[in-house]
Amino acid sequence: MDDGWIPPASFARLDHDRTARRGYPEAVYCAGKSPEQVGAIAAELREHGTAVALFTRADPAHAHAVLAELPDARHDAQAQLVAWPPYPPEPSGGLVVVLAAGTSDLPVAREAELTARYLGRPCTLVVDVGVAGLHRVLAHLDLLRSARAVVVAAGMDGALPSVVAGLVAAPVVAVPTSVGYGAAFGGLAPLLSMLNACSPGVAVVNIDNGYGAGHLAAQIAAPRPD
Amino acid sequence: MDDGWIPPASFARLDHDRTARRGYPEAVYCAGKSPEQVGAIAAELREHGTAVALFTRADPAHAHAVLAELPDARHDAQAQLVAWPPYPPEPSGGLVVVLAAGTSDLPVAREAELTARYLGRPCTLVVDVGVAGLHRVLAHLDLLRSARAVVVAAGMDGALPSVVAGLVAAPVVAVPTSVGYGAAFGGLAPLLSMLNACSPGVAVVNIDNGYGAGHLAAQIAAPRPD
Amino acid sequence: MDDGWIPPASFARLDHDRTARRGYPEAVYCAGKSPEQVGAIAAELREHGTAVALFTRADPAHAHAVLAELPDARHDAQAQLVAWPPYPPEPSGGLVVVLAAGTSDLPVAREAELTARYLGRPCTLVVDVGVAGLHRVLAHLDLLRSARAVVVAAGMDGALPSVVAGLVAAPVVAVPTSVGYGAAFGGLAPLLSMLNACSPGVAVVNIDNGYGAGHLAAQIAAPRPD
Amino acid sequence: MDDGWIPPASFARLDHDRTARRGYPEAVYCAGKSPEQVGAIAAELREHGTAVALFTRADPAHAHAVLAELPDARHDAQAQLVAWPPYPPEPSGGLVVVLAAGTSDLPVAREAELTARYLGRPCTLVVDVGVAGLHRVLAHLDLLRSARAVVVAAGMDGALPSVVAGLVAAPVVAVPTSVGYGAAFGGLAPLLSMLNACSPGVAVVNIDNGYGAGHLAAQIAAPRPD
Amino acid sequence: MDDGWIPPASFARLDHDRTARRGYPEAVYCAGKSPEQVGAIAAELREHGTAVALFTRADPAHAHAVLAELPDARHDAQAQLVAWPPYPPEPSGGLVVVLAAGTSDLPVAREAELTARYLGRPCTLVVDVGVAGLHRVLAHLDLLRSARAVVVAAGMDGALPSVVAGLVAAPVVAVPTSVGYGAAFGGLAPLLSMLNACSPGVAVVNIDNGYGAGHLAAQIAAPRPD
Amino acid sequence: MDDGWIPPASFARLDHDRTARRGYPEAVYCAGKSPEQVGAIAAELREHGTAVALFTRADPAHAHAVLAELPDARHDAQAQLVAWPPYPPEPSGGLVVVLAAGTSDLPVAREAELTARYLGRPCTLVVDVGVAGLHRVLAHLDLLRSARAVVVAAGMDGALPSVVAGLVAAPVVAVPTSVGYGAAFGGLAPLLSMLNACSPGVAVVNIDNGYGAGHLAAQIAAPRPD
Amino acid sequence: MDDGWIPPASFARLDHDRTARRGYPEAVYCAGKSPEQVGAIAAELREHGTAVALFTRADPAHAHAVLAELPDARHDAQAQLVAWPPYPPEPSGGLVVVLAAGTSDLPVAREAELTARYLGRPCTLVVDVGVAGLHRVLAHLDLLRSARAVVVAAGMDGALPSVVAGLVAAPVVAVPTSVGYGAAFGGLAPLLSMLNACSPGVAVVNIDNGYGAGHLAAQIAAPRPD
Amino acid sequence: MDDGWIPPASFARLDHDRTARRGYPEAVYCAGKSPEQVGAIAAELREHGTAVALFTRADPAHAHAVLAELPDARHDAQAQLVAWPPYPPEPSGGLVVVLAAGTSDLPVAREAELTARYLGRPCTLVVDVGVAGLHRVLAHLDLLRSARAVVVAAGMDGALPSVVAGLVAAPVVAVPTSVGYGAAFGGLAPLLSMLNACSPGVAVVNIDNGYGAGHLAAQIAAPRPD
Repeated sequence: MDDGWIPPASFARLDHDRTARRGYPEAVYCAGKSPEQVGAIAAELREHGTAVALFTRADPAHAHAVLAELPDARHDAQAQLVAWPPYPPEPSGGLVVVLAAGTSDLPVAREAELTARYLGRPCTLVVDVGVAGLHRVLAHLDLLRSARAVVVAAGMDGALPSVVAGLVAAPVVAVPTSVGYGAAFGGLAPLLSMLNACSPGVAVVNIDNGYGAGHLAAQIAAPRPD
Repeated sequence: MDDGWIPPASFARLDHDRTARRGYPEAVYCAGKSPEQVGAIAAELREHGTAVALFTRADPAHAHAVLAELPDARHDAQAQLVAWPPYPPEPSGGLVVVLAAGTSDLPVAREAELTARYLGRPCTLVVDVGVAGLHRVLAHLDLLRSARAVVVAAGMDGALPSVVAGLVAAPVVAVPTSVGYGAAFGGLAPLLSMLNACSPGVAVVNIDNGYGAGHLAAQIAAPRPD
Repeated sequence: MDDGWIPPASFARLDHDRTARRGYPEAVYCAGKSPEQVGAIAAELREHGTAVALFTRADPAHAHAVLAELPDARHDAQAQLVAWPPYPPEPSGGLVVVLAAGTSDLPVAREAELTARYLGRPCTLVVDVGVAGLHRVLAHLDLLRSARAVVVAAGMDGALPSVVAGLVAAPVVAVPTSVGYGAAFGGLAPLLSMLNACSPGVAVVNIDNGYGAGHLAAQIAAPRPD
Repeated sequence: MDDGWIPPASFARLDHDRTARRGYPEAVYCAGKSPEQVGAIAAELREHGTAVALFTRADPAHAHAVLAELPDARHDAQAQLVAWPPYPPEPSGGLVVVLAAGTSDLPVAREAELTARYLGRPCTLVVDVGVAGLHRVLAHLDLLRSARAVVVAAGMDGALPSVVAGLVAAPVVAVPTSVGYGAAFGGLAPLLSMLNACSPGVAVVNIDNGYGAGHLAAQIAAPRPD
Repeated sequence: MDDGWIPPASFARLDHDRTARRGYPEAVYCAGKSPEQVGAIAAELREHGTAVALFTRADPAHAHAVLAELPDARHDAQAQLVAWPPYPPEPSGGLVVVLAAGTSDLPVAREAELTARYLGRPCTLVVDVGVAGLHRVLAHLDLLRSARAVVVAAGMDGALPSVVAGLVAAPVVAVPTSVGYGAAFGGLAPLLSMLNACSPGVAVVNIDNGYGAGHLAAQIAAPRPD
Repeated sequence: MDDGWIPPASFARLDHDRTARRGYPEAVYCAGKSPEQVGAIAAELREHGTAVALFTRADPAHAHAVLAELPDARHDAQAQLVAWPPYPPEPSGGLVVVLAAGTSDLPVAREAELTARYLGRPCTLVVDVGVAGLHRVLAHLDLLRSARAVVVAAGMDGALPSVVAGLVAAPVVAVPTSVGYGAAFGGLAPLLSMLNACSPGVAVVNIDNGYGAGHLAAQIAAPRPD
Repeated sequence: MDDGWIPPASFARLDHDRTARRGYPEAVYCAGKSPEQVGAIAAELREHGTAVALFTRADPAHAHAVLAELPDARHDAQAQLVAWPPYPPEPSGGLVVVLAAGTSDLPVAREAELTARYLGRPCTLVVDVGVAGLHRVLAHLDLLRSARAVVVAAGMDGALPSVVAGLVAAPVVAVPTSVGYGAAFGGLAPLLSMLNACSPGVAVVNIDNGYGAGHLAAQIAAPRPD
Repeated sequence: MDDGWIPPASFARLDHDRTARRGYPEAVYCAGKSPEQVGAIAAELREHGTAVALFTRADPAHAHAVLAELPDARHDAQAQLVAWPPYPPEPSGGLVVVLAAGTSDLPVAREAELTARYLGRPCTLVVDVGVAGLHRVLAHLDLLRSARAVVVAAGMDGALPSVVAGLVAAPVVAVPTSVGYGAAFGGLAPLLSMLNACSPGVAVVNIDNGYGAGHLAAQIAAPRPD
């Protein structure tokens, strides 16, 4: 960086009271931040003793910088997630079931699963249940109907959330993935499919936003006072 | 229609067991159907004695056709909704709060409110709380924090769901509206804003889909056995 | 029109030998033509004694102009189709099954059905088999598996062709419809879904192109010398 | 991958009965899968003794991983395809002709050709027959008219399928390619051209989807019991 | 309009010396102007004795307003053009040939033809020469090769300019039309096709811009001093 | 509206202290509101004795409803604006110059002019200064250089703001208009041009947003304490 | 480059009198230029003794080439900016406040800050004030209200400018950033949000255009003779 | 490549009689072809003794492969063009003037210049004449008015062709470039500007298509028999 003839601004101000205000901790979005910046944030979080911290979209250099400050943090390379403290809290609330339509959707689904777990929900991940083989969906019907929230990660035609929402009473959190090519347009095709799901009860989040999907599912399935 | 030299197909097959399967009744989407078709569906529903039936996107001719078959149904012209039986069930589950960013978003917000009510939730609608006057949002903070689900209907910049989700622990169901002009592109601008909300916990539904928003909120706030 | 100080061009040149060249007659696309132009084409076809003539996208004024020249032609208002001579040929080749995901998709599905019939195939139309109620699809499995080509007309999420193609060996002709609103973007959403179908064997045609779908299915199911 | 404090999910569930159900084997889409995952799938397929397995979008690392498990598999680098067992079945059914509009379209065309061959059809590939030199198209008219299905791979203006479909009675499977630049927008231009083909009988598949085009053509040209 | 408490601005300033500067007269684009405004412009042009004036996109009310001021002006309803003085100048320069791919493209093609004529070129219009019947294009090869500029108006797949440009040495002015539906997206499909024409020598103008196409062709075919 | 079995919400909450907070009064956006709603707002404003009220996008029915409550309000039909009280305040601050590239851009330019005037600035409107005749721009150079803010309304190619910003030191507020057709895509073309202006100093507002342009210019040219 | 059998053109012609004409110096946009070209421009500027020169979008190689010619120039790597002479002029005019919604928006915000400083304005940069934590915005209210122009850099939902513009009387220059992923579409989402801001007084510039935002703010806050 | 168990197709069929048919030689588009393929085409061209051959979009490996077969060919790295034989023909026909709006547009402009020269026209290239400094355009007015065709390469706002076309009688060939960022969307912004040019006489080609622009200009300015 520069020597300060026009001094550089500080680069981040953490929202330490978010947990108090919202009930959920802040996550640190690493993309677009330098490893140095992410490392400095990790150090500040250590000082404040945050309950749970999640670093999302962490590439290996980001993960390395976090682990230098928080050596017992856990890094899941597939989900590009670093969590601290390393073990999720004891599960409470309703079950979250995460479905990945295909193997290529697994990184996004895994990010959703881990997020839901770290925010305190019990969570189960099921892979490769695309609509091209309906029997694979129907085989999990009991599990699906026991969930308080279902997350569905799917690319290409994005058809799975419509099918699942037609089978269960719980809300379905649909996360389109950028899996596909050509007219998938980086996830636009499944995004539009999911927004136009012919079954009501489908909540859509951004393309590849496994973190957001897991967070939303954790809120829906949260334990209640009543 | 034609005299049948190639006989016309029957035009609809109702999914009468959806309530059993999903816990929520089927809605009849009137757009693209003729009043005659909608009237015939109303007659069939009357025969089956469905618990609750909602006719969405009902223009005056559709409403007239339904009322001819179900004279005690209720028609809300602003929400383009016809409900039968006329009174919603006794409320159960958590509170749903519906916000309309501006007066022009009211038809969509009203559709969400009535849907949540007819699916059995207590529901409150608040109007004209756009982010251009933050004090109007903050004035409702206690109400917002008492909700189990918040629906936010907003057009133009679609900024309100981000602001609200940063203030509450409950999920926010964001419904972009086609209010606006030019680069709003029929609701695309608020749709993209909401999908990119910088606060997690925002569930997006289709543009102007008040019915879907109300349905999703009713599922999230549903009473629970535990 | 004008008095001809720069004389107007003749407005159409028919491709009378298309049947010889391709095995299928030419269709007259009425949209963008005046009723007078369509009527004149009808008169010319009558002179040439074409085997079968189809007038597609015929609004009532177009239909009226055709019937003035070809009084025994048949007009199907729902499909916006006028056919002459009025009765389709004796069916030959394999069965074409046409599915409409919802009632609002019926005009497109009917156009496909009639086209396949007039081009000489046996054809069956089934309505309201959307993926929100999978049991409605599965109820027709035997029929679907007896088809040599399946046409699927669907709007909104366009998910049905993926599901059907996963169940049958025959090609599926997928025709997206403009049914829907908001982020359906006039049929773009189901179009992209269908192009990204996770099951192979899906042939996509233009939005609302029931004629093209029926034509393609008729070619696929054509009788063969072998 | 991780050590399993939250144990990773298994990453794939194969659809071994697809051949029974649909008559065609499952293909493994390699893009987005790690070489390790693809290798494990290859091992599982070897165990089950699948009739034919195709690995599509296989980069060199994917191919290497497959060949480690199935040493006699065949790898076509241009088509990014690995096939096992190495030789296609004895051809049956009608002829599939594949056209590549230009040399740059050859990888997609080759993928279509090999797919059709491995699914059991006789197949001929012809290159460099763009519409800028019509005589090159017309020189192949006899071959084209002997086909039961024609696949046309074209980028840029995507004009070739319209021209070909106007010349033959068989269905034309049009596969737009991402060949081109600027306003080709990664294949959007030929995709839209093909969806709007002025000749009926054009079946469109996704951009660069040579596998899908070959599969669809193989279905259309399949041998028939009648 | 208002009474002028803030006085309204004058609404137009004509560019009377454009003919001197560019060699071609100004055209008056009527869309978005009131008939009163167009009538006042016509009156001003009459005062200045302009060589040739063209009023484009003139609906019947616009035409009526012009004719009230310039009673001997000529109105071509199909081309939505009003010309004054009524007869075009004696033709000079090279031949302009205008092709309309289909009957529905005729209004745009006619606007191009009349523009080229009023700007002084000899011009021939040929209709219904789409690529679905190549023989119809090839039948006009001698005419096409005698042209100094060819205008091609086409909607849908917009394939005709590529084919024509591959056959002639003269520049081809391609004007996409909004003929079509669905994925034609109001002329976007043929626009992209034409911009990606696989034959060089294709000059593209705006969708439905028959005036611009005729003007450009007239410039290309202008007589030369050398 | 309905009889209130679920009582309708009140439809608007005015932001009466906006003038105190921001220094500029609130405007009432009429599109999407019923005349009854607009009339009720007008009545409420009358009660509060607002300094200045502007009703934008007011169609004749909206204007009529306002005038019933505020009989001395002024209605400018071209600008679709109703102002109350009828006369703008005494001008203060720097000069605002508004340019309309063509006559068809005049409604938007007029809306900008009136807004700037009612917010208290001196303002001059100049029409028909498109870049096709540069001498028309250059003729106003002294006026342009005397402005503290220049508003440029232009459709089609949207080239004028780049040219003007290259000639003056003051900021240029660029408002794209929906004037044009085809590839203008409802104002998208000039919007993108203006966002990519090769001259710095161009402030872009929404398509057809004359009100926003006039408001921004009035802020830029506001009188200052220093 | 080539040996000149067709001699290469000179590659740039500087606009040395821009400062005289507009009051602001020319900037050199480095992207798309080779380091050699940029170095040669730097040498030419040194000869002319320009008051201030800014090199924008300068990657390390560009910066190195400039520093070779202008050794005392200053390079800010985060902002990709090289300035010469190294120290900005003494500040004059009103205060410019620059807000970065998040840490990832900092490079764009820093480019705006430095540009405003080098063009002569006092300037303050504040980071991490996104709408997900409104208290962070409200904490800077006094600073914001003391500004003559506020620059807001934000990606994702782009909601911050609407919120800020609702709180201050000064114009807000909104610069969307490409921070985000998926449906952010490279900055399209915040761009559309900002163009549709529900608060008037928002001036939008191109995505990631920190230079343009700083330049516009400097013009708005310029000292005035009156 | 493979060993031929399914033998690979030949990869190209040259159109050797294009010069006879169209008067202009074929160009070889190298992008998407391997260096080996391009080298083999060069060898074939050498055998046929083509008058002029142009290899466009040739990266260094392509150029190397051509030079191995045609050692006296000329390679212009900036234009990515290889020409053979090395010297262009003696110029004939009218003058082609090529303008580059900025230095970054130079590669496209240079490709246009060389193409026009190799197709036989006299040609002059002028750089850095953007509309931000109108005096730079006006300084070349005499040169521009002596041209028979003007090529304008411009990115960003793409405003230059409108300005130039308003000043000259000759056709303007407008080639949008991908110069710019953000809302330039890879050249979409200048493409739309140029298609909507408010001056008639603008012929648009594809983004970055310098070859096409030079070819079209050479056709327009070709010598004539009359």
